[in-house]
Amino acid sequence: MNSMLYFDNAATTKISEVALAAYDKVSEEYWANPSSLHREGQKAKQRLEDDRNEIARYLGVPASTLTFTSGATEANGIILQNLLWAPKSQSVIIPSIEHNAVRGYERLLREKGWDVVSLDAPRGFINPRQLESALSDQTRLVCCMLVNNVLGTVQMVEELVQVVRNFQMRTGRKIHVHTDATQALGKVDFNLTKLGVDSAAFSAHKLQGPRGIGLLYNTDSSLVALSQGGEQERSLRPGTENLPAIEAMTVAIKDAFDRFDEHQQRAQEINALVRASLGEVVNILTPKENSSPYILNISTNKFPSEVFTRMLYDQNCCVSSGSACSNNAKQKAENVLSAMKFPPSIAKGSIRLSFGYDTTVEQAQQLCTTIRQLIRM
Amino acid sequence: MNSMLYFDNAATTKISEVALAAYDKVSEEYWANPSSLHREGQKAKQRLEDDRNEIARYLGVPASTLTFTSGATEANGIILQNLLWAPKSQSVIIPSIEHNAVRGYERLLREKGWDVVSLDAPRGFINPRQLESALSDQTRLVCCMLVNNVLGTVQMVEELVQVVRNFQMRTGRKIHVHTDATQALGKVDFNLTKLGVDSAAFSAHKLQGPRGIGLLYNTDSSLVALSQGGEQERSLRPGTENLPAIEAMTVAIKDAFDRFDEHQQRAQEINALVRASLGEVVNILTPKENSSPYILNISTNKFPSEVFTRMLYDQNCCVSSGSACSNNAKQKAENVLSAMKFPPSIAKGSIRLSFGYDTTVEQAQQLCTTIRQLIRM
Repeated sequence: MNSMLYFDNAATTKISEVALAAYDKVSEEYWANPSSLHREGQKAKQRLEDDRNEIARYLGVPASTLTFTSGATEANGIILQNLLWAPKSQSVIIPSIEHNAVRGYERLLREKGWDVVSLDAPRGFINPRQLESALSDQTRLVCCMLVNNVLGTVQMVEELVQVVRNFQMRTGRKIHVHTDATQALGKVDFNLTKLGVDSAAFSAHKLQGPRGIGLLYNTDSSLVALSQGGEQERSLRPGTENLPAIEAMTVAIKDAFDRFDEHQQRAQEINALVRASLGEVVNILTPKENSSPYILNISTNKFPSEVFTRMLYDQNCCVSSGSACSNNAKQKAENVLSAMKFPPSIAKGSIRLSFGYDTTVEQAQQLCTTIRQLIRM
Repeated sequence: MNSMLYFDNAATTKISEVALAAYDKVSEEYWANPSSLHREGQKAKQRLEDDRNEIARYLGVPASTLTFTSGATEANGIILQNLLWAPKSQSVIIPSIEHNAVRGYERLLREKGWDVVSLDAPRGFINPRQLESALSDQTRLVCCMLVNNVLGTVQMVEELVQVVRNFQMRTGRKIHVHTDATQALGKVDFNLTKLGVDSAAFSAHKLQGPRGIGLLYNTDSSLVALSQGGEQERSLRPGTENLPAIEAMTVAIKDAFDRFDEHQQRAQEINALVRASLGEVVNILTPKENSSPYILNISTNKFPSEVFTRMLYDQNCCVSSGSACSNNAKQKAENVLSAMKFPPSIAKGSIRLSFGYDTTVEQAQQLCTTIRQLIRM
């Protein structure tokens, strides 16, 4: 049996040594409540703002646009839940390939009288023309994830935002554009200002940061959180600030950005290696162009996903048959792939391989050998 | 100047060495996503359920009633936000002494057509007769915090729940009773089953656990979360499970329960010492009976809170003029104390001293000396 081969980095990554050390240090030295007015509290507050400034520099945005959350799920939730404050229900566009942290709100919104417009994404890409025809003068929010978690496709967010802005110019009504960038941070090259989105959601644990912490980028001053409590994070995210995790996330982001090219090059090398090694024995669903090098979705014609993932588990290979968030669940990868117009026979056999900064070429070779052997058997 | 004297443990506590070590260990050894189906994921999942079982044993409740959240704010929020699923707006009872993580929902609920009934709490105690007369056949939820964060008073929750259950028997309509127990866990003796509440909110960082993690206890099977995402925590709290923090919280709770009597005795000793030492120079607002020994609210007739806390900060004493969550904010301690019918002159000068497991008698003596000196000056 193989030693453990971890190819499920889109589900989570192991926290890096430097990030964990930062968590420990801040837990020891800056442990007071950043909202307390005494010296210890203010020392923690300063550290919190230093972290926010550092992340802002890496993302190239003003620090005031960044809100610390408990993760991407909550960051997405702040944007979607904000709609419930609206005096009247209008319309929202949610592509069928969004993660359930966004799509999950469809039912609630419909119950509250909202018109929820879906959008196909053939082969993982939202079509700007389709988006254009979905817009109406009732549209208040357009969601558009940056990197799809199942397939790895990178949306042309900049172009999609332009479609929205052009429409907006004609109607004179502001439409909020939100991108779930959970699988993008540190994995693909993007610039929030250039993308032109109003908001974006991020998570730390996908890039060797700690669990339970994430970020909301937001430039829409009308945004109001539904969650209530203290006035932390300018009332967008109440609750005592999780400074140790924020510091650890800052270190993880710094590392991801400082070593972006090095990481990118290795991911591309591994990606190419797996494509070359498995191209003849499986269908590779992730397009070569406009995809994250960190995600590769493959499908055997031979085994359903559940069967093949289990065969791989038995060989000590950690892969995924979809999003970890919904392995027992409604939003199976299969459904997402069906929405992408992959034939059922292919969608049913889909397996997601996802690479991390610490994935090695040797591990990728071993994985490919294992997959080829299992298929040959 | 004094070495640092920390008397703001109701705002936050320093994570204990054993809890931080547990965080590190689990970050290293159980780092996979508990929702992943491969071996590493299932190993993490098992650890998560072991933690839940251990906490359940300490709390004396079934493990299935416990949901891990990002903290007490979120745990309270799940209960309050659940009301938004209701097909028609009804009535909710929110005492005026609740933390803003509960009271903050008043505006939203009113906007959605709910009748929000307030309840006074003279000298920090909700009156069962008053609660009884506030109940109506429209009442769906009654909130009632266990230990008040400003004054430290312990509500007679069991008696209040009985009032609700008696009313319920007459009308045949279920009313959910929720208690915010953030300042109670590990600090006062209580039994959730005996209290008879339907739900309770807890936080780890108030008892030397980590930041960013908490608990919701809930026995109401009709509860539905507003937040959407993966199906973690039986869909009550979506988002990748924060296992390192959950493990660290488990260790903190274990420690708090195993050493409950020892901690309680020291807190009572310190409480009595401060009462005896300051009784002649300040008003002690926290009643001697039915209060947490960990919180002592005092008021000088001489200085407004902001002035006196600042004088204490200059002496390196960390105290609070209210809830850390709202030091810059609406829900000042002063307002809470006014709702408790303290005269304005006394409410304006209120300072909260809060003790932790690691507070020493010597530190308390030093604090008292400093306070007496400042008042004498």
